[in-house]
Amino acid sequence: MEENKSPSFQNTLGMVPGSVVYVGKKHSGDLYVDVFDYDKNFFDEKELDQIEEAYPYIDSKPITWININGLNHTEAIEKLGTHCNLHPLILEDIANTEQRPKIEEYQEYLFVVLKMLYFDENNKLSIEHISFVLGDGYVISFQEADGDVFESIRNRIRYSKGRIRSMGADYLLYVLMDAVVDNYFNIIEVMGDKIEELEDDLFEEQSNDDITHEIQRLKKEILKIRRAIFPLREVVNKLDKSEHQLIDKKTRLYLRDLYDHILQVHENVEIYREMIWGLMDMYMTTISNKMNEVMKVLTIIATIFIPLTFIAGVYGMNFENIPELHYEYGYYILWVVMFVIFFGLLFYFKRKKWL
Amino acid sequence: MEENKSPSFQNTLGMVPGSVVYVGKKHSGDLYVDVFDYDKNFFDEKELDQIEEAYPYIDSKPITWININGLNHTEAIEKLGTHCNLHPLILEDIANTEQRPKIEEYQEYLFVVLKMLYFDENNKLSIEHISFVLGDGYVISFQEADGDVFESIRNRIRYSKGRIRSMGADYLLYVLMDAVVDNYFNIIEVMGDKIEELEDDLFEEQSNDDITHEIQRLKKEILKIRRAIFPLREVVNKLDKSEHQLIDKKTRLYLRDLYDHILQVHENVEIYREMIWGLMDMYMTTISNKMNEVMKVLTIIATIFIPLTFIAGVYGMNFENIPELHYEYGYYILWVVMFVIFFGLLFYFKRKKWL
Amino acid sequence: MEENKSPSFQNTLGMVPGSVVYVGKKHSGDLYVDVFDYDKNFFDEKELDQIEEAYPYIDSKPITWININGLNHTEAIEKLGTHCNLHPLILEDIANTEQRPKIEEYQEYLFVVLKMLYFDENNKLSIEHISFVLGDGYVISFQEADGDVFESIRNRIRYSKGRIRSMGADYLLYVLMDAVVDNYFNIIEVMGDKIEELEDDLFEEQSNDDITHEIQRLKKEILKIRRAIFPLREVVNKLDKSEHQLIDKKTRLYLRDLYDHILQVHENVEIYREMIWGLMDMYMTTISNKMNEVMKVLTIIATIFIPLTFIAGVYGMNFENIPELHYEYGYYILWVVMFVIFFGLLFYFKRKKWL
Amino acid sequence: MEENKSPSFQNTLGMVPGSVVYVGKKHSGDLYVDVFDYDKNFFDEKELDQIEEAYPYIDSKPITWININGLNHTEAIEKLGTHCNLHPLILEDIANTEQRPKIEEYQEYLFVVLKMLYFDENNKLSIEHISFVLGDGYVISFQEADGDVFESIRNRIRYSKGRIRSMGADYLLYVLMDAVVDNYFNIIEVMGDKIEELEDDLFEEQSNDDITHEIQRLKKEILKIRRAIFPLREVVNKLDKSEHQLIDKKTRLYLRDLYDHILQVHENVEIYREMIWGLMDMYMTTISNKMNEVMKVLTIIATIFIPLTFIAGVYGMNFENIPELHYEYGYYILWVVMFVIFFGLLFYFKRKKWL
Amino acid sequence: MEENKSPSFQNTLGMVPGSVVYVGKKHSGDLYVDVFDYDKNFFDEKELDQIEEAYPYIDSKPITWININGLNHTEAIEKLGTHCNLHPLILEDIANTEQRPKIEEYQEYLFVVLKMLYFDENNKLSIEHISFVLGDGYVISFQEADGDVFESIRNRIRYSKGRIRSMGADYLLYVLMDAVVDNYFNIIEVMGDKIEELEDDLFEEQSNDDITHEIQRLKKEILKIRRAIFPLREVVNKLDKSEHQLIDKKTRLYLRDLYDHILQVHENVEIYREMIWGLMDMYMTTISNKMNEVMKVLTIIATIFIPLTFIAGVYGMNFENIPELHYEYGYYILWVVMFVIFFGLLFYFKRKKWL
Repeated sequence: MEENKSPSFQNTLGMVPGSVVYVGKKHSGDLYVDVFDYDKNFFDEKELDQIEEAYPYIDSKPITWININGLNHTEAIEKLGTHCNLHPLILEDIANTEQRPKIEEYQEYLFVVLKMLYFDENNKLSIEHISFVLGDGYVISFQEADGDVFESIRNRIRYSKGRIRSMGADYLLYVLMDAVVDNYFNIIEVMGDKIEELEDDLFEEQSNDDITHEIQRLKKEILKIRRAIFPLREVVNKLDKSEHQLIDKKTRLYLRDLYDHILQVHENVEIYREMIWGLMDMYMTTISNKMNEVMKVLTIIATIFIPLTFIAGVYGMNFENIPELHYEYGYYILWVVMFVIFFGLLFYFKRKKWL
Repeated sequence: MEENKSPSFQNTLGMVPGSVVYVGKKHSGDLYVDVFDYDKNFFDEKELDQIEEAYPYIDSKPITWININGLNHTEAIEKLGTHCNLHPLILEDIANTEQRPKIEEYQEYLFVVLKMLYFDENNKLSIEHISFVLGDGYVISFQEADGDVFESIRNRIRYSKGRIRSMGADYLLYVLMDAVVDNYFNIIEVMGDKIEELEDDLFEEQSNDDITHEIQRLKKEILKIRRAIFPLREVVNKLDKSEHQLIDKKTRLYLRDLYDHILQVHENVEIYREMIWGLMDMYMTTISNKMNEVMKVLTIIATIFIPLTFIAGVYGMNFENIPELHYEYGYYILWVVMFVIFFGLLFYFKRKKWL
Repeated sequence: MEENKSPSFQNTLGMVPGSVVYVGKKHSGDLYVDVFDYDKNFFDEKELDQIEEAYPYIDSKPITWININGLNHTEAIEKLGTHCNLHPLILEDIANTEQRPKIEEYQEYLFVVLKMLYFDENNKLSIEHISFVLGDGYVISFQEADGDVFESIRNRIRYSKGRIRSMGADYLLYVLMDAVVDNYFNIIEVMGDKIEELEDDLFEEQSNDDITHEIQRLKKEILKIRRAIFPLREVVNKLDKSEHQLIDKKTRLYLRDLYDHILQVHENVEIYREMIWGLMDMYMTTISNKMNEVMKVLTIIATIFIPLTFIAGVYGMNFENIPELHYEYGYYILWVVMFVIFFGLLFYFKRKKWL
Repeated sequence: MEENKSPSFQNTLGMVPGSVVYVGKKHSGDLYVDVFDYDKNFFDEKELDQIEEAYPYIDSKPITWININGLNHTEAIEKLGTHCNLHPLILEDIANTEQRPKIEEYQEYLFVVLKMLYFDENNKLSIEHISFVLGDGYVISFQEADGDVFESIRNRIRYSKGRIRSMGADYLLYVLMDAVVDNYFNIIEVMGDKIEELEDDLFEEQSNDDITHEIQRLKKEILKIRRAIFPLREVVNKLDKSEHQLIDKKTRLYLRDLYDHILQVHENVEIYREMIWGLMDMYMTTISNKMNEVMKVLTIIATIFIPLTFIAGVYGMNFENIPELHYEYGYYILWVVMFVIFFGLLFYFKRKKWL
Repeated sequence: MEENKSPSFQNTLGMVPGSVVYVGKKHSGDLYVDVFDYDKNFFDEKELDQIEEAYPYIDSKPITWININGLNHTEAIEKLGTHCNLHPLILEDIANTEQRPKIEEYQEYLFVVLKMLYFDENNKLSIEHISFVLGDGYVISFQEADGDVFESIRNRIRYSKGRIRSMGADYLLYVLMDAVVDNYFNIIEVMGDKIEELEDDLFEEQSNDDITHEIQRLKKEILKIRRAIFPLREVVNKLDKSEHQLIDKKTRLYLRDLYDHILQVHENVEIYREMIWGLMDMYMTTISNKMNEVMKVLTIIATIFIPLTFIAGVYGMNFENIPELHYEYGYYILWVVMFVIFFGLLFYFKRKKWL
């Protein structure tokens, strides 16, 4: 989870390139490794204690999916990397949760970095770093912490639902990536709801500074989501275009479909972004509208009563010779005059549509 | 109709890729299938009860157009897909109303996804998902629901108007796509009218929050329209450039023309978009102008009467020795003074162009 | 003239592609056809009654320029199209005033669509659709209505000024296009004047809503101009790059020059566009400045007289025991106090630079 | 100097293409021609009376630089053009001060158009049109008027400073262009100073409309600078990439360096542009801040004295039975009450941070 | 340090191209040269007095890193340049602190210009110009002044940490560039902190003009950072793509990784840029909110007391015949009436949510 970048940046400064350093924050206590080993007719699922126990599965024939939770266990990652002959820079990227989504093609394997997005219990966006290594007959997935979006895939393998058991490791990689991307739609949907909520708040009475804060918070979230999602377009496109021997021709069709989904996410993110930016303008006009209303009330009251008060003031003067004061009905006539002024001004404001 | 995305996103999460799931909302009761079978000299039109009845038409020689309404009848779509040998991902895209416009070229057929746009009875934009499969001698169109923009095409086939009966299935696909795109001009026109209406409202007296709301609504609509229309550019361009054997050279000229129309729609959408964004600024200045006017009225009234009231207050004081009070014409002189002040200030405001 | 798009869009919906339908508004009564037939040593100018009379000129050897005014005479256009072997889609584009600028290359001819821009007597922008067909030894120009920018070209041909008489039909096409583009500089200049005028208005006293309206009108005009001019860049570039046998190598140099002019128009349009958008901001600050000034006047008056009025009020109270009232010079002392307050506040505002 | 485009646009409308028409404004009285003739060991500098006197220099072997001031002497330009075999369109571009920067490659020569920028004595931006013709062993520069940025180059040739005397005419062209580009840094610097000055003004007390005007003026200047500078990037890139035999391989390194400088100018212009646009926002917030301050003063004064005045008014009423009026210390008690209210409100505003 | 560009621009105007002129400001007293000479088994570190002492190291076999601090010692740079056969334009770029980041490939060496960014003790951004020359077996780094980000690299060489001692000079170049880029993350982080601080300030009570100033300052800083960082993308990409024989294939993988880091910096800069621009809007709404609040207070007070004051004024009039004045409880009744008005208005404002 890369909520706060400060400590992580610090940790890697001045490091030897290729150093495997975990810069995230979510230190899951134990290393968690589980293995799915399967082909069309065979299926085995194991939870391992030691990373070394995974080696025979990788080397054996059936398709193997090894899922590792806990990027803070860097020695285990390094051991596995050595066994699978992974380049040191790859191991660095697996542990470096700051790494942006990317794909790297090596002779013997493919390396993909993605970001899983969640909204946590406080409705705050949290980002989990996830990497995949696709080798000959195996996929290894490295997750920062427990909890993922792969449960339905596990069930598909377990109960042999769909094509998955009859396809290769490249299809498994596709399916895993697809699950990550599908989950983005959830995220986008929550963003959409948040925007709509805020829009409603704008037109109701709410404490004002909160709204500015909330808009700013949404802006930051959408920018984070963009940063996590946008490089994906290039990643999947590269994967689709790549001539790597590990990617089967049949899988390519599915990758194109995945690319389509990413474009869709892309578009939605852009639309929501524009809408969030628009919220600030809306808010501004709402404030101005309210001020306008306040001003009108003040103006109406002041404009009506200031002249009347002046008149009252005139006849409160102590000149010896003010003839009106001595008329018997002077007081009543004055009330009539003041009523005329009062209703005349009301009528004027009515015509000006201020009332 | 993809008004509200929430339920649809949910439905497909964790699905096996290639699953044919209808995620739209408009559940037309029955499946509706009709067939147009024609060539230069022959014409037949049928409404079918079962999807299986369509097979002989597809396999027969004359050009066949099969139109299917009701994407919720996924089993029928799957059956037809199996008969025509369509890839599972295609079937998924036919039923997935969230799919953005695209074109997919397969060995034996072309697959095109478009969006039909309508304004419904409440003047709300609604989007209908439509897909076309162009095979050897046939076009199948899949519509979400009843009602389309193809009536004039049906008549052209029925009464052999224009070139349509003497051209191939690729020309039919062009004509169908052209009808969808032509309809966009209607949509754009309605948007133009809405913008003009709103502009007029801005300069008249209207309840204010409604206008902000209305502008926000227009923004969302134009963004939706963009999302539906923009990928089309690439779709038609790809279709035009494609070397697929199903597209005749003669039809290519028409596709280029279609591309031209799409560019035109494109430009108009962009212009209207800029104008809608400009509305917010206009609205803001309008509010500010009104506030300015309100402020001026207040200022004029207050500035005139506050000094006068002060003078009246002065001669309302009860000092024993205020010589002015004992002048015989003191009261009248004071009125003169106050009139001078009154008209002096009026003249000052006049010169400042506040009146 | 495509002022109002509504009727035109409607007219073409559901039409057979390639239908020649005039969708403009300016119905010039009669068809007007005139012919310039010339080469280095020969010159003939005729006004024709029937479109058929033009055929011999087209087929004859000297360079022929046929100018046709009145796109509503669609039958005549169709007849000529048949004689020159023009594709139906071309004829549709000639009559369709909504068609954006473009170039189409066919085996035997080139087809170019442009827009002529005018400011009419009410200073409103009006757009005229104009198309050119360049064939072997002839140019046909189709104008919506009478009145064009070609008078100087006619004189150059008549009096054999410059190179025109010794060059081919491709040079004639260049010269005609150049005249259209040159005229854009006039249009841009008028826009520049309008912007400057509006800027001046902003700083003088003017009825406010008019300015917002005027800015919005300018925005629309510049967007229309952009739409008419921007596709031209691609048109001339394509023409320059094209290897079509009808374009002589010598003419290409002139086309490059034309391209240069279009870039220049382009740049100016963009600059004026930015300036028009900036006007809204300027206007906003101007309003705010005025409000600020109004507020200051109110604040100064109110802030000075409200305390004074309070003091007068105090000594207008009827308490039995107010010793000040009985001082012989109490009244005069109070005046002194009030003057001190008055000038003290004036001095305060002076120091705050409000005066 | 192309300050005001109106007359110039008019002058060229309807002209035969290739006409040499000077459209600028700065009519230097006499034609001014001077010649630098040099090679490694030889140097000659002459001021010529007649353009024809330049011919032998051009045709002779040593490197020749002919500088011509006074584009209004179009006949002289045409004569020289004929001698050097220049294309009529080139001659048109030399005299047409509206021509944007460009490069044209011909078989026997290269033609480059640039803009020299100055701030004149009133600190107004003025643009001078300058063109270069690079032929075999000579460079001809055409300037609109006297005064240029080449003095240091003249000295380098005179006193054989640096490489210039031992390099070819292509290097001379580079050196001249480099001088023009170097001068842009001065221009940019002045713009930077103007922006900073304006920023300072924003925070001090200044007459307001002037600032809006000034910002608008800066916007126009930066747009003009952009228009003069931006095409240069392409010009130098083209020159660098060109395979023209007149450009030596050794000079290419210097051209790449020149390209670098242009990029740097480019970046600075863009940054200043963003900053100027930002000034408007800054100004807006400054106005709002001031209004806020004004409002606070008004509110504080009004809010304190209005209730006090009300109280004084109450005890100024003439009811027969107002017991408070008869208390001996009523008046003093009231003063105490009013002081309490006064300081209570002051304290309230203090806590609200309005004071 | 290129804080203020004015003097530097001036210095180079009119210079002979290829002149080695230091235009920076930080004149470190003495030239500082130190040498690291190493291979897998050998290590030597020396501080040199004369630039000439470095020659044997460069010519010897082990990898040599020569670091030079003090660009104002231009003669030393020229001497070294002559020894290493560097092009004069390269020497000019080494000393010209205005030079933007770039890479130049020559036959025998590679030349890279970067910018080191620091925040100095006043938290002001300062930029240091740094260039690298990669030759056969050596890297020379030219720094403007003392102090750099290479300390950890020195230790890695000294204590043979990581791969560095067993790799070539190209890897050393990579490591040095990597250190510069890694440091950018620190800079970005500080920018992030500053933005957050400013955001917090916005919602608290602060002197207003400072915030506008501060936002403007941040804008300028982020623009400077962009200018320093953005060209890097192209630099590293070119280095990665280059087929230069000095770059080993193994090092290329590391360069790709460096490219990745630069993209990440890039993205962060863009995000912070958007956020800084957003701050201005936030500030604007904050001001408006405050003004709205001020207005409400004024309106409430004025609206309540103006009518009450009017009533008091009425009964302060001196008409002979005002019957109410003679009622025994008139005064008390009036108080009741005034309380009713008072609380009625309070209730009205409560319902309007102004309180």
